[in-house]
Amino acid sequence: MVISGSTALESDPLMLIECIPNVSEGRRPEIIEAMAAAIQAIPGVRLLDRSSDPSHNRSVFTLAGDADGVERAVLALFERAVADIDLRRHRGEHPRLGAVDVVPFVPIDGATMADCVALAKKVGAEVAARFEVPVYLYEEASADPARKNLEDIRRGEFEGLAAKMSTAGWAPDFGPAAPHPSAGAAVIGARMPLVAYNINLATDRLDVAKKIAAAIRHSSGGFRFVKAMGIKLEDRGIVQVSMNLTNCEKTPIFRVFETVKREAERYGVAILESEIVGLVPSAALMSAAEFYLQIQGFKPDQVLENKLKN
Amino acid sequence: MVISGSTALESDPLMLIECIPNVSEGRRPEIIEAMAAAIQAIPGVRLLDRSSDPSHNRSVFTLAGDADGVERAVLALFERAVADIDLRRHRGEHPRLGAVDVVPFVPIDGATMADCVALAKKVGAEVAARFEVPVYLYEEASADPARKNLEDIRRGEFEGLAAKMSTAGWAPDFGPAAPHPSAGAAVIGARMPLVAYNINLATDRLDVAKKIAAAIRHSSGGFRFVKAMGIKLEDRGIVQVSMNLTNCEKTPIFRVFETVKREAERYGVAILESEIVGLVPSAALMSAAEFYLQIQGFKPDQVLENKLKN
Repeated sequence: MVISGSTALESDPLMLIECIPNVSEGRRPEIIEAMAAAIQAIPGVRLLDRSSDPSHNRSVFTLAGDADGVERAVLALFERAVADIDLRRHRGEHPRLGAVDVVPFVPIDGATMADCVALAKKVGAEVAARFEVPVYLYEEASADPARKNLEDIRRGEFEGLAAKMSTAGWAPDFGPAAPHPSAGAAVIGARMPLVAYNINLATDRLDVAKKIAAAIRHSSGGFRFVKAMGIKLEDRGIVQVSMNLTNCEKTPIFRVFETVKREAERYGVAILESEIVGLVPSAALMSAAEFYLQIQGFKPDQVLENKLKN
Repeated sequence: MVISGSTALESDPLMLIECIPNVSEGRRPEIIEAMAAAIQAIPGVRLLDRSSDPSHNRSVFTLAGDADGVERAVLALFERAVADIDLRRHRGEHPRLGAVDVVPFVPIDGATMADCVALAKKVGAEVAARFEVPVYLYEEASADPARKNLEDIRRGEFEGLAAKMSTAGWAPDFGPAAPHPSAGAAVIGARMPLVAYNINLATDRLDVAKKIAAAIRHSSGGFRFVKAMGIKLEDRGIVQVSMNLTNCEKTPIFRVFETVKREAERYGVAILESEIVGLVPSAALMSAAEFYLQIQGFKPDQVLENKLKN
């Protein structure tokens, strides 16, 4: 791919890392715009997507580039966010711990999970040193099972952070042992690409969607990398199995789809359609084509577009 | 994608055209190497693949770049081929009309079929003017139904070319009214990407493969953009439906697969596996994923890699 203005990319054109920082500001357009501009000012980095939710009072940026570019973009974002956001005055529906709340690094192309873990630690140390914001590592970047899960780290939120940080086991991985007065703490880590995937059922029976969600999600005995819930789409009079697929390599989309389809049959229900919300890595869809077409011995570099990148 | 050394690409980074010239030389490595080097010397052009068949005495190059780069590469290839190949001494199993026998341009990314037709005509006129080689336009570049099909144009081969060119309806589109003495004529045109796709059946019954091939191919009443034949894979004791898919947008892979599967069931035969030979555009596999996963409202720019290109 062409990333305009990239210089770092020319030295390592094959490494591409995605980063999806979540910041605690979703209402003041000028503050959000300044953060987006800070990211876009970094050569070799592309801001792929941005969305703000006023009721959550939160914005999510999706950016991509090589390790060096993404690091510089995240530091530029912290600089703006720490200056402009005060958690003491922040209210919103979404739980949060800090001004820049969560920063996951995701390996996309030519980058490994190990690259992203190393990057998370480097950026974490830098954030703590430059902005005096304590940093917790999470997911693949955390070695401690009790501190892998974002929800566990964030429990108690900004308001409970000072107390939490002084209890055993909750010293941060980097930075001061107490919260930054206005910016709280940040959770930085590495994870696989997350795919938001929904399957709509040709029924209005919410119990069916809930039973199927329970059957496939990890927390109740289902697939290792599936989070799922059954919800009603009131306006359409149907129900949906709403999912996050947290590792499409190990729990592929087609297996989830076929399992939902089979479970629905058990209740005499058909699949109406599915939808992918937001971005999906091409490999996640390629693997579905390989499965259904029973393609043997297929290599990624047989895809014309991949061949052109290498 | 990054195409190293490209300058033209920076002015029009979204146009990517594939070109697959077939030349009448598959035995002399130094001649083949010189032709490959001539292509590779053009900035902004990537030589993606090359294969030579000594019994056919023929080589196929696959290259890609923007319109300007691909044009220059084809002219550089003609220069070498016209100098080094003499059809009067050429023997091989594959039918041929000229030193550079066939040159299809294929729209890949940001390029339309109209772009490729225009490029075929521009290159055809230039080849005729520079090398005094007569040029026939074919497929989408030809307006005459009798001169669209490569096999129709090539019938009679180099040996029958002088006689053919003097008959009504066979004046070339560009260049002299008689063959080049040593380089014959060239067939230049535009077409969709061609996907070589085979489906192996879990049986040794050749009649089943032949009946299925007849059912799906255009020439005997099947799909508009499918060429197919049934063959035996002696070493494995199975049979294969061997296909060329000449337009995967209009006749998608999944529809061909499902039809072969259904026809095979009629004979109590299962599909063992399928295979894609060589390159395939990612869109051809994406459409299969969309079909089988019943994905509604999917947009190409939801694919992370596509998003990065734009």
